[in-house]
Amino acid sequence: MVWPALEKLLFDAVATESPSLKQLLAHVLSGGKGLRPTLVRICAQFGPYDPAEVNRVAAAIELVHLASLIHDDILDGATVRRHRPALHSLYGPIPAVLTGDYLFATAFGLLAQSPRAVLNIVTATIRTMCEGEIEQRSVPALTEQAYLSHIGKKTASLISAACRCGGVLCHLKRSGQEGLARFGWYLGLAYQMVDDLLDLLGQSEELGKPCRQDLSQGIITLPILRFLELIPQSDWWREKISRGLTPEEMEEIIVTARSLDCCQYARERAREQINFAFSALESLPACPAREELAWLASQVLAKIEELDYSGPAQEGAEQKEVAGSEATV
Amino acid sequence: MVWPALEKLLFDAVATESPSLKQLLAHVLSGGKGLRPTLVRICAQFGPYDPAEVNRVAAAIELVHLASLIHDDILDGATVRRHRPALHSLYGPIPAVLTGDYLFATAFGLLAQSPRAVLNIVTATIRTMCEGEIEQRSVPALTEQAYLSHIGKKTASLISAACRCGGVLCHLKRSGQEGLARFGWYLGLAYQMVDDLLDLLGQSEELGKPCRQDLSQGIITLPILRFLELIPQSDWWREKISRGLTPEEMEEIIVTARSLDCCQYARERAREQINFAFSALESLPACPAREELAWLASQVLAKIEELDYSGPAQEGAEQKEVAGSEATV
Repeated sequence: MVWPALEKLLFDAVATESPSLKQLLAHVLSGGKGLRPTLVRICAQFGPYDPAEVNRVAAAIELVHLASLIHDDILDGATVRRHRPALHSLYGPIPAVLTGDYLFATAFGLLAQSPRAVLNIVTATIRTMCEGEIEQRSVPALTEQAYLSHIGKKTASLISAACRCGGVLCHLKRSGQEGLARFGWYLGLAYQMVDDLLDLLGQSEELGKPCRQDLSQGIITLPILRFLELIPQSDWWREKISRGLTPEEMEEIIVTARSLDCCQYARERAREQINFAFSALESLPACPAREELAWLASQVLAKIEELDYSGPAQEGAEQKEVAGSEATV
Repeated sequence: MVWPALEKLLFDAVATESPSLKQLLAHVLSGGKGLRPTLVRICAQFGPYDPAEVNRVAAAIELVHLASLIHDDILDGATVRRHRPALHSLYGPIPAVLTGDYLFATAFGLLAQSPRAVLNIVTATIRTMCEGEIEQRSVPALTEQAYLSHIGKKTASLISAACRCGGVLCHLKRSGQEGLARFGWYLGLAYQMVDDLLDLLGQSEELGKPCRQDLSQGIITLPILRFLELIPQSDWWREKISRGLTPEEMEEIIVTARSLDCCQYARERAREQINFAFSALESLPACPAREELAWLASQVLAKIEELDYSGPAQEGAEQKEVAGSEATV
């Protein structure tokens, strides 16, 4: 989904004389679905815009996203990303932390030429993302509200910011910018909920990264939260999750969670968010850009429906649909 | 050296609702010599300036410095900083990486209100700093030129940027800005050379952090480079340094380096940089601000002279002067 002008801009923006850094950047910039820059581009089409400016902001937001992925992968100890080795697992954590910092600085260099409102939105968003990551790792979610707050800060905030920046760049009035930001927020929540479900239910070959990373790190996502709400020994399990699960315990949780329809419950909540996103669109003028946003939301909805909630028993039957779903949006 | 208005601004700028992040920030913001913000403030006094704007830029540059220190300490595996535990050794690397990112974002939030020229200077500088760190760690210095390039990118670039930003904020003409940037560059080189000498010659109690970190990480600083130039078995030692030294080997290098006057050689080169810094000042109009800059440079020169180059034999005699030298500038 990354268009040629954006790709060129990304490569030009990060250009460096340092041979070591060049190698690191080449690894980082390849691949990627480009959801966030696409949202900037579509949301800028609600009014007149300067394409060069839109590309700059789209590139900056993608760089912020890539920087945060690099740092998160180090923190998660994740070794694979997008079917390829994570940067830090190839080159070590030192160049990876620094490459992330370099991308942040490059993003702000691009934004130096943009309206101050855009710069303010992006800096506030990065702060929010960091807060969310720190909270999620220091205080595991005890309630659905806490879970929504974590994924809101960690994921929905940047997707929402991408939409709002698009609105700023096409000089949409404040209420329109708010509508776009709301759309992005709910889309982002649903997007992360699907990601969390995939982490729990998917197979690593399909995801392009190992599955069940959240649970093994003690991060409690919605289906597990539901499981903890429904079972009688929830404190005992909570303790076990925070101390680190054995593979057998992890399997037991997943089998029980499936039998209690915890994943279907999470699906319902994700559908709700998509419906909120559709509602947010209604406040915006009908136009091709609005149609495009609705289509994007429907793609996330399709991913929600495609997941294999029924478990390994029916695995053969639905497996094919799940495969490749990660690549859709 | 951090003045009250700046301190308040720093605390206000990083303010967060997240209790975990609050704790992390409190640890990070305490202490610090504030060389870089002081340079912004002094350099802004070469013309008329807005004190609020100067404080904002000074705060932003200090935050960039703090963020880079946090990330460097993780990368170095340094456990102590400014006589206190490094952030990551108290709270783990995850909150530390994220706190660094949070400070970068906060810095850019402050700069969003500043002239674009300032934003461009700071973003370009962070990129340079990252390049320098990556290069230093991937390609150990083989020549004095490479060493100067490493410390220039890693340290002198931000000190130089602080001076240049001051000049921009008081509307100094281009040649004046260049003069300030040149002054900061040479001051920064000397400053890092002293730091490198302290790392090699100092005692951990005086430094407020463990000494000989560079050598133990395979980072080749100027005295060691000189040692490698003078001894016949330099390839053999280089190999050893890159593989990791035993305490005995480290001692042997330091004793030999002292006997070959390698540290005095580095002192000469550092003095040279300070003289270049004084020369850069001559291009600027004579005024109290210029006097203050000259005084700062003379303080760094004093630190260079105070170091104990003669080694443990005379340790008792000169030890007292070395103690506390870190706190001077």
